[in-house]
This record gives sequence, C-alpha cells and structure tokens, in this order.
Amino acid sequence: MDIVQATIGRIRAPDRTAEAAAAARQAVLTKPGGSLGDLEALSVRLAGIQGRADPRIGPGAVFVMAADHGVCAEGVSAYPPEVTPQMVMNFTAGGAAINALARVSGCRVVVTDVGVAAEFPPSLPIHHRKIAPGTKNIAAGPAMSREEAIRSVAAGIEVFEEELEARAFDLAATGDMGIGNTTASAAVAVLLTGKSASELVGRGTGIDDAVLARKIRVIEKAIALNRPDPADPVDVLAKVGGFELGALAGVFLASAAHGLPILIDGYISGAAALLARAFCPGAVDYMIAGHLSADSGHGLMLESLGLKPLLNLGMRLGEGTGAVLAMPLCRAACAALNEMATFESAGVRNRE
Amino acid sequence: MDIVQATIGRIRAPDRTAEAAAAARQAVLTKPGGSLGDLEALSVRLAGIQGRADPRIGPGAVFVMAADHGVCAEGVSAYPPEVTPQMVMNFTAGGAAINALARVSGCRVVVTDVGVAAEFPPSLPIHHRKIAPGTKNIAAGPAMSREEAIRSVAAGIEVFEEELEARAFDLAATGDMGIGNTTASAAVAVLLTGKSASELVGRGTGIDDAVLARKIRVIEKAIALNRPDPADPVDVLAKVGGFELGALAGVFLASAAHGLPILIDGYISGAAALLARAFCPGAVDYMIAGHLSADSGHGLMLESLGLKPLLNLGMRLGEGTGAVLAMPLCRAACAALNEMATFESAGVRNRE
Repeated sequence: MDIVQATIGRIRAPDRTAEAAAAARQAVLTKPGGSLGDLEALSVRLAGIQGRADPRIGPGAVFVMAADHGVCAEGVSAYPPEVTPQMVMNFTAGGAAINALARVSGCRVVVTDVGVAAEFPPSLPIHHRKIAPGTKNIAAGPAMSREEAIRSVAAGIEVFEEELEARAFDLAATGDMGIGNTTASAAVAVLLTGKSASELVGRGTGIDDAVLARKIRVIEKAIALNRPDPADPVDVLAKVGGFELGALAGVFLASAAHGLPILIDGYISGAAALLARAFCPGAVDYMIAGHLSADSGHGLMLESLGLKPLLNLGMRLGEGTGAVLAMPLCRAACAALNEMATFESAGVRNRE
Repeated sequence: MDIVQATIGRIRAPDRTAEAAAAARQAVLTKPGGSLGDLEALSVRLAGIQGRADPRIGPGAVFVMAADHGVCAEGVSAYPPEVTPQMVMNFTAGGAAINALARVSGCRVVVTDVGVAAEFPPSLPIHHRKIAPGTKNIAAGPAMSREEAIRSVAAGIEVFEEELEARAFDLAATGDMGIGNTTASAAVAVLLTGKSASELVGRGTGIDDAVLARKIRVIEKAIALNRPDPADPVDVLAKVGGFELGALAGVFLASAAHGLPILIDGYISGAAALLARAFCPGAVDYMIAGHLSADSGHGLMLESLGLKPLLNLGMRLGEGTGAVLAMPLCRAACAALNEMATFESAGVRNRE
C-alpha cells in the first residue's frame, strides 16, 4: 500500500492561477466569446493541470491493461477467454484497432499483462506484471485477495512511472483488454455510483437479451454474496473487480500525481476512474472524458464523475480507442489558446 | 453557367464496389462487428468516394470564402461589418482560430475574397475574386443579380481547381467569414429545407432576444419581398444569399466532381451544402458533416441533407473550424480499416 498512499499524497489541485490566465486569454482572442465551445473549457483545464497559461500537448501514451476474469464461467461474454491473450499478441504485432488509431494520434501503446490467464514469452515487449492468471469467479466468491488488489493498483503506478522515465509523454490515456471485464466493471460501478445493475449493465462486445439478463443476475449475485464496502475501494476491487481495473486505477492516480492530463476511454476505464476517485477525489481533476461509449451505463459513470465526453461516435471497443481519438482535440484546444491573435494584436474590432 | 454545368456533369456516384469491399473488410477485422461505431461507416463512405477499398487521407485544404452582406444595415449582427476585412487580414497573418486548428489537422487554409466590402492590396496572398463589395440588403431587394450569383459559384469551382492543381490534397473542408452571413444562410435554408425562419434562425456570433426577433422578421420580409423560387438555386442565391454562399456551393460541386470528400463546417457551410444539393443532389454523396454547430437550425440543415455530424462540441465560430477538427477522425477511420489485422491473420478467435 506504500506506493499507492505515496502516490495519492503527491496529488495536488490544478493551478488555479494558470486556469484564470488561460480563461482571460480566451476572452480576448479573435473570436466571439465562447464560440470554440468545449475546446475553450478544455484548454483552461489543461492550463490548470500543466500549471502554465499556455499548455502544450506533444506525444501521448495509452496504457492498455490486460487481464482475465473468472466470471466468464457464468457465460456473460460473447467471446471466449482465449481471446484475451490472442489480442495481447495482436497489440504487440501492431494489428489491433488501438495500434492503428494510436499511430494517427501521435501516441504510443503500452501493453501490460496484469492478470492474463496464459503465459507469454518473457521476451514479448510488454510489461510483465501478472498478479494471477485471471480473477476468481465473483459469482462464487471474491475476485482476488486484498493484497492482490493493492498490488494491481501499484502495478499500474509503477508501469506509468517506468514509461514516463523511459520516454516523456504529455497526455496519458487508459485502455483495457479482458474478456468478461464489462461484468466486473458494472459491479464496481454499481457500488461506486449507487445506480442499479440494470441501469449500468451494457451489452459489452455484443450480447443478446438472454445473456444481458444473466449478466445482471450475476452482478447482483456477486454483490449480494461478497458484500463489498462501497466506502473502501480496495474492498470493492478485491471482491468484484479485476486486475486491469486496479492497474488502470493506479494509472489514473499516477497521472494525477505527476500532473499529467489523462483521457478516460470507455466502460472499463470509466469503472477504473470511479475506483481512482474512491482512492482520491482530487484525481478527477486530471481526467478528461475522451468519448461516450455506446455501452449503456458509461454515461452514468461519466455523469457521476462530473465529466462531459468529447466524442460520441457510437464506439464500444475498449483498448483505449475512444480515448486516443480525442488526443488531437486536446492539441487543437491548446493550439487555439496559444496561437490565436487577440482583438488588439490583430487590429480586429470586438463587439460593442 | 458553362463551368457550373460542366462541373455538375462530371459528378459521378461513389464506387459501390469499393464500398462493399471496405464493408466486408470491416466485418473481419479484430474487433466486435460495429464496435468502431461511426468510424466504420465513415471508412466505407471514404472508400466509395475514393474508389478504392483502402482509402487514404493525407493533406487537407479548407476553403474560407469571405464576403459582406448589405443586410447588416438592418442590425442583425453583434459585430460591425468592418470585422470581415479585418479577419481576412488575420487569416493571412495566421492568427485566426482556423489557422491554429488547421495547423494541428494537417490542413492548409485557402482564403478567397469573393465579395468583401473593402479593397485588399493585390499582393495579399488570397484569391482575389471579388464579385461586388458586399451584397445588397435582402430586406429591400435582391442580394445580387442572377449573373453575379452564377459567377460566385464559378469562383468557388475555379479556386478549388487552381488549388488542386497547385498542390494536391485528399480532403477538402468549407469555411466562411462574413458579418451578417447567418441571416442570408437562414433565408437560404428556409427555402431549401421548407422549415420556418424561427426554427432555423440562430444567434449567430451571439445576439440577444431583441436582435433574434428582428433577424427572424428580416428573413421573413426578405423572402416575402423577393419571392425566390425554391426549385431554382440560382434564384435563391441571387435573391437572399451571399457571395460566399455561392462560392462555397461551387467548392462542394467541384469536390464532388473531382471525387474528393469534403467536410461541411457549421451554419453557413450547411446552407451552402443545401445550395449545392439543389444544383446537383449527387454532390451530397461526397459531403461529410464535420460537426454540429451550437447555432440552432444547423441540425435541421444536416438532417435535411441526411448527414450525421462527427463532432458536437458546442462550437459556433465558422471559418471552417468545426470541419478541420474532424479531419483526424477521417484519417483514423482509414487507418483502422487499412492497418488492422483480421481475425484470421492475427490468429484471434471470433465469436461463435
């Protein structure tokens, strides 16, 4: 718990002076006030996060955390669990959606095995942080031990810091791979938003009505059986979570501790963001909602976090795809703030 | 009218074979079917437009058409008309929002004076295509002659073709500058969508309730007085339009004729897209709605065109800003289609 507590202890509030300076500059740039819409608010938030009135966003890094889920035994997913390690191999070969989209977005893909139920060759260029080969079935008992839950959060922090030291990035993003992880994410979200399973459960990668009903029953059963304490994020994570959820919560905390903005992807990342908030409410100040997932329930997570998504393209893929797509918007927000002329400097007459 | 008719005559339907091939490929890429949401449909459209199953989007070009409006005499705008030439100077100095956003989006800014009520030095690096120093007041008579209307459309086509010959681009976008042009755009949209002025009129760059009511009255008066024939786009343009609206309609037609996709910006570009459709319905097959403007009424224009906007960021600036912001999404759609592995090639098991 030491590294987790130390990381939380380093999270500061954004720089309100830099935010005010950016907002003041937005008001005198050559455009009607507010006409750049959400880009203006985004630029102000980035200024506060970076602690400078002229924020800059260069390279990005998306942290894709992969793990398996014992709850797949309940038949809650449209895909077999073997797809998790197969997709990890696809990430390393550069053939997944996140690889293609990250290339376009000036972002590197950082893959971590934090609990996949398969052995990878040690030479595979991923972070090898396997806590266990998948969680246990949450419909029959806790997903993992309390100690494993803490280790998963610590793994996310450590991977983030290793990558930051190896090669700088200005903007982080979260992503996930794990067959069955929308079930664990929904259970976590039920506990941390106070909404019901039927409100929060989505169709994941595409399940039918019968599987959807089963998924809701499984989540309700897992919560009734394990009785997680909603006030204790470690307990929630251990009893109904997943290793990638813990690791992503760690990535959110580390990004906030290092003063870097971080884009939330979809459903799984949303649940991890809720976990990070439960560890430290101030972490939310560093989060930007990249997109609204087509998976119903994601909107409720973002609402609970008080965040408005930048994109709404009907995506429901995970991997970080919706988050990295929003990176160019963050750069655009900075470019407008920093590079535009003012009414005075350009000799343009303002409204009366 | 020769160049306009010749351009319309060159517009072909998109390549349905390429579309089908792209759609078939989307179905076997390593992701749940449909999980990339609107990006999948976008990639299929781009394939049809480019006539290849693997569409590529490199550099972009945004065509910013500037002109003034006699209707400003009615007090319909929050800014004085002198802002139009001042902003043209700002564009050439690189200090406007469109300059900053275009740089981030890998897009060049092409500025044309098609009817600004000021003289620019001939050395100013813009296209000098002034048809007249602003339109006449549409609340008192027609905006321009029929011959001027045709010349404005031709100017858009010629500027597009000159630029395409000078330096290639793969993706066009439309933008505008002209104090008073939301009034002309609303009048055009009333005629070409069949909706009422009060449904279509927005607050432009930010007017109050009294000005909004006046703007609606002015539009209703202009239509009652001039009686444009909704079936004749030249008549609509001449009687209640603007020179930049005609030029942008020409840009849409030219882009379709050259088989290039073109991103629609906001309110003014939406009205110009309606004009282009009135000239040639097939031109819409080449249009992509970049964003939904915060100016109410824009959604009705896009609905009438049958297009769903990619972005919805509460922007209402014009200049092409919302269109160029969507360029990275077009590149991302192509990257996912072209660069992702298939279930078979990656050895990933598909759903049963």
